[in-house]
Amino acid sequence: LFQPEMSQNIANMSGQVIRDILKLTQQPDVISFAGGMPPTDALPHEALREISGLAFEKYGREVLQYGTSEGFLPLREFIVKWMAKKGVKAELEEVIVTSGSQQGIDLMAKAFLNQDDRVIMEKPTYLTAIQIFQLYGASFLFGDSDENGIVPSSLQQISKHSTNKLLYLVPNFQNPTGVTLSQDRRKELPGMMAELKLVLVEDDPYGDLVYDGNHNGPIKAHDQDQRVVYLGSFSKIISPGLRVGFAVAPEAIIEKLVIGKQSSDVHTCNLAQAMIYEFCAGGLLEPHLESLKNQYRKKRDLMLEVMDRHFPRSVSWNKPGGGLFIWVQLPAGKTAQGLLKEAVKEKVAFITGECFYVGGGGSNTLRLNFSNASSAQIEEGISRLGKVMHTYLA
Amino acid sequence: LFQPEMSQNIANMSGQVIRDILKLTQQPDVISFAGGMPPTDALPHEALREISGLAFEKYGREVLQYGTSEGFLPLREFIVKWMAKKGVKAELEEVIVTSGSQQGIDLMAKAFLNQDDRVIMEKPTYLTAIQIFQLYGASFLFGDSDENGIVPSSLQQISKHSTNKLLYLVPNFQNPTGVTLSQDRRKELPGMMAELKLVLVEDDPYGDLVYDGNHNGPIKAHDQDQRVVYLGSFSKIISPGLRVGFAVAPEAIIEKLVIGKQSSDVHTCNLAQAMIYEFCAGGLLEPHLESLKNQYRKKRDLMLEVMDRHFPRSVSWNKPGGGLFIWVQLPAGKTAQGLLKEAVKEKVAFITGECFYVGGGGSNTLRLNFSNASSAQIEEGISRLGKVMHTYLA
Repeated sequence: LFQPEMSQNIANMSGQVIRDILKLTQQPDVISFAGGMPPTDALPHEALREISGLAFEKYGREVLQYGTSEGFLPLREFIVKWMAKKGVKAELEEVIVTSGSQQGIDLMAKAFLNQDDRVIMEKPTYLTAIQIFQLYGASFLFGDSDENGIVPSSLQQISKHSTNKLLYLVPNFQNPTGVTLSQDRRKELPGMMAELKLVLVEDDPYGDLVYDGNHNGPIKAHDQDQRVVYLGSFSKIISPGLRVGFAVAPEAIIEKLVIGKQSSDVHTCNLAQAMIYEFCAGGLLEPHLESLKNQYRKKRDLMLEVMDRHFPRSVSWNKPGGGLFIWVQLPAGKTAQGLLKEAVKEKVAFITGECFYVGGGGSNTLRLNFSNASSAQIEEGISRLGKVMHTYLA
Repeated sequence: LFQPEMSQNIANMSGQVIRDILKLTQQPDVISFAGGMPPTDALPHEALREISGLAFEKYGREVLQYGTSEGFLPLREFIVKWMAKKGVKAELEEVIVTSGSQQGIDLMAKAFLNQDDRVIMEKPTYLTAIQIFQLYGASFLFGDSDENGIVPSSLQQISKHSTNKLLYLVPNFQNPTGVTLSQDRRKELPGMMAELKLVLVEDDPYGDLVYDGNHNGPIKAHDQDQRVVYLGSFSKIISPGLRVGFAVAPEAIIEKLVIGKQSSDVHTCNLAQAMIYEFCAGGLLEPHLESLKNQYRKKRDLMLEVMDRHFPRSVSWNKPGGGLFIWVQLPAGKTAQGLLKEAVKEKVAFITGECFYVGGGGSNTLRLNFSNASSAQIEEGISRLGKVMHTYLA
């Protein structure tokens, strides 16, 4: 059989981890805490069905014709206003609509990375961001992290290379650890970027999913030196299937993101952009978000409570104030991979933490999603997982 | 002002050509033959508006939830059947849905190209394909072309490098020249790829827009050695704004396209995929295509007739059997750039041919689109352009 010679950056990637997870989660009798999906019954189906008709009526054939790579103008205008409420002053020219915030990461990689350039990240960090940067030939350096997110002084310790390009952070309810960057550090980090010759990529898909107390605004709000690119998403708060996100960036960077976007997919689906706009501008976002937050808060509380009841004492975890995930630590010497093998026999699935570590590490960690499963599934699945843990850790 | 250090492949790209064209075409009083858009009133607005509601009813919340990177299953199954009618036998596992066929080019570049790898193309060729490959650091080699498309024996003359990776062709009504690859060459080319260590990228957005006589089937129909990747699009035959296309490729290549797709935008908008599927499976594609072809044939005939009447004898052009473009040659020594400056004063626009040449060439050529303008605009615009030509070429 013909084996084509692939690019060096993709040749050894199999995509197997994600495929295996999907396979597990698609078995109907498996209770999966693996993904990061909204529960299907929380998607605003009726509202968006109506809005799809409305978008056709209001925007006529425009939704079916080619659009600009920058995005649907009313949506970009809404994003400017929405970001202003979050404390980020952005001009229209600083906003581009992307096909999910994930495309924002891809376009930033395309704009900045030469082969062997370096991206500075937290360890662990978002699995697919690692893959995206690897596809552009990046290597990685790591800052230290604690319970307040990345430690700014640790960035000063990183050896200076002219090939250090991007600092990638998920500042709110980080995937996978659930950690949130403190307010002090949000103020401190942007001012460090010029000296470090870095651009900070602030990936914020979970920032609106806050369940406890007040919330820190975006790092981008403190971006005096125009060194921060904010990536936002409507996937976790409206619908992932429509694939609409956005980037807010200095104009010099937007210009390159637009070139990348022209080349990647020309523009994001116009109908999807118009629908997201109408949902937001029609005043549906805020009540929907409140309802989502109430559901997810209850599920988080339930999962934490059931974990308390069923997990062995030797297992520890965080209590995230938002987002979608709980991060679990097994006792040293025990692997989440080993646990998963046993768990799957009992029809429960999760993601092993080592997927989020570049070059190994975290073998005793795992990530549990609490948004997708029903309350009954959380009770049953976590109880099963607790039983498996008791045996596996014995 | 902060000037970030961009990747070497994007640093010198300004996207200015495409922006300038857009600016021209967005002036309401300019008659533009520059783009490649369907006329807005030919978009199947009513049908797709109804189908958007139907898609919500039939596929429930599925359209709003995450989908697989491979694409919406019913649409992939339709593509398998549709390709079979075109003479291409593909398994379901050989089909991936893309966000427009342009994303197919991008994903092929991502899967195959290391910095400085070579792509073999025709000269001239599709403007944005050049930009996509350049963003992945490609350099270019060129086969010879004649009125039957690329000359297979000329590929044998190209110096052999292990870094020669892809042969990129638009075999039907090539953009910009309108040339169609002959049947003999379609049979010959796939068998040459193994020896040349190339994968052939068959980019076919215009293959269904045939106005005269019978049509040659895809090159992919003769792909005994599994060396051809077919890129198809629904942009030119249903709606560009929905951004749905597809690739048909050997499984070993699909695996890498899926990894690239996971990283680029996770998957194509599910609602758009479901709508394209319902449009096609509901039997609307064939009558719509017939109607489009009748409109475009008339416009092509009209434009050719008006050109005959108004253009100077020293100007020559082709008579394309399909597609969207007429390719025009000014006498040697006269530039299309100079002509455009004068034409814009008379509120007529087109694309200069040199945009389609890597590293210069074609300065006396230009491309005229006949699909977008109305018949009245074609009469008026071409007559104006003829007048400008008479003065400019005098």
